[in-house]
Amino acid sequence: MTGQPNVVDVDDSADPRLDDFRDLNSIDRRPDLPSGKGLVIAEGVLVVQRMLASRFTPRAFLGTDRRLRELADDLRVTSAPYYRASPEVMAEVIGFHLNRGVLGAAPRPRELTVDEVIADARTVAVLEGVNDHENLGSIFRNAAGLDVDAVVFGTGCADPLYRRAVRVSMGHALLVPYAWAPAWPDELASLRDRGFRLLSMTPNPAARTLAAAMADLTDDRVAMLVGAEGPGLSERAMRATDERVRIPMSRGTDSLNVATAAALAFYERARVWSGGQERSDQGSDDT
Amino acid sequence: MTGQPNVVDVDDSADPRLDDFRDLNSIDRRPDLPSGKGLVIAEGVLVVQRMLASRFTPRAFLGTDRRLRELADDLRVTSAPYYRASPEVMAEVIGFHLNRGVLGAAPRPRELTVDEVIADARTVAVLEGVNDHENLGSIFRNAAGLDVDAVVFGTGCADPLYRRAVRVSMGHALLVPYAWAPAWPDELASLRDRGFRLLSMTPNPAARTLAAAMADLTDDRVAMLVGAEGPGLSERAMRATDERVRIPMSRGTDSLNVATAAALAFYERARVWSGGQERSDQGSDDT
Repeated sequence: MTGQPNVVDVDDSADPRLDDFRDLNSIDRRPDLPSGKGLVIAEGVLVVQRMLASRFTPRAFLGTDRRLRELADDLRVTSAPYYRASPEVMAEVIGFHLNRGVLGAAPRPRELTVDEVIADARTVAVLEGVNDHENLGSIFRNAAGLDVDAVVFGTGCADPLYRRAVRVSMGHALLVPYAWAPAWPDELASLRDRGFRLLSMTPNPAARTLAAAMADLTDDRVAMLVGAEGPGLSERAMRATDERVRIPMSRGTDSLNVATAAALAFYERARVWSGGQERSDQGSDDT
Repeated sequence: MTGQPNVVDVDDSADPRLDDFRDLNSIDRRPDLPSGKGLVIAEGVLVVQRMLASRFTPRAFLGTDRRLRELADDLRVTSAPYYRASPEVMAEVIGFHLNRGVLGAAPRPRELTVDEVIADARTVAVLEGVNDHENLGSIFRNAAGLDVDAVVFGTGCADPLYRRAVRVSMGHALLVPYAWAPAWPDELASLRDRGFRLLSMTPNPAARTLAAAMADLTDDRVAMLVGAEGPGLSERAMRATDERVRIPMSRGTDSLNVATAAALAFYERARVWSGGQERSDQGSDDT
């Protein structure tokens, strides 16, 4: 597992070894849908690198020679084949031209449990009804960047392993641990039993501000709940939390995008949490 | 101008009176491009309402009877015709089925100057190289929600009146005043001459945190600069500002989406500004 990449040249787009990557946009055959092969698809060098660093085990790659050279070091940890093809052959296989030039495909591993993902977590995001893949991907990207340790899904959320969600998340949907709540909103009571303080995000002007609420929780484990744009969190879910909090908004505006609202909550938590600043002051690895 | 809506029934999709709305996706005829008619197109009830409340003067509407009833009160302020059509005729005119059910079209008014948009502004967002319409729309939505008074465009930004930008902004691209800097980055010096403190957003771990920098500026006029995802702000632009500030990020993550980073800066400014809390505590008009 530490040798050279397992490169296999292909020049026939009908080669059945490429079937994991075939017709990525085809409604009935999409490999990343449970009705398809249920595969997790990584697109582009950065997301493939994150897949290789995650609990997902890629079983094949399809990419150009240029991307192979960019990934050569990363691929040393895997024996899965890298099908090297021209951009034209790749386009014929996947059904469109992919600028990113490389794909990885991994089977879905077993789902993690809530207990597993929150075991060492100080800060958790809990989502209800977030059924837009782009918002879901953005939330994972924001969670990764702003020190959120895990994501728990309540009812009505979309699949975070859907190709678009993985892409928008910049691959963080593969790295930030998540789990589906087996019962909703009952799971919230058991989060509280495990020592979490639960905050519901709401546009309700009667709620306390996010900043005021977070300032009281610097030594606590915190779970932040956000609901879908439009309906927001259900009353049932909000009743099962400790407090409702709001982002101060200008007059005459409607609510923020759900991923943006979540980012503000994550930011505020990281800003005031007693352990957060210490970690974040180590700086970022941004380029 | 305060009477009944000027309703005109149309059942022929070839009617030339509907030309403002024709082929909205057609590359060479797009009405919202300067190469087309240069019109500003509002989609949906909420955005049409915001257009009617803005400095943009709609000259025609195309919509269903259902949307007409929802807009009846708003339309009393205009004598522009509301072309009432079936969803089928609408789809033939615009080239696709529009769930939102109503469109407004306004000519582009003269551009505002930087002096005009910053005259009474306490907080300004300055963008460089933000050429993605979705990010641009999100930034306007976030600016409106988080107490930013005006937007100034440096070099390389996309058109905020492009249909997609207006839609993603929820119509706030029509309401938050903006202007194009006539010289870049020289305009930054004249912003400073007018009393603004200028902050560059950067992922550089050596920069001071956003929260620390904003805390020192509670009594100042502030201009926050954000650059395109990927390259970020140019060195030339950053050198012309007072300070570089960063959002504390988790280790191993890349930068946030540009609209998300901007939202965090807007939020932090509103949180600590001496006049911000007073206004925002009046609550929001969210539903």
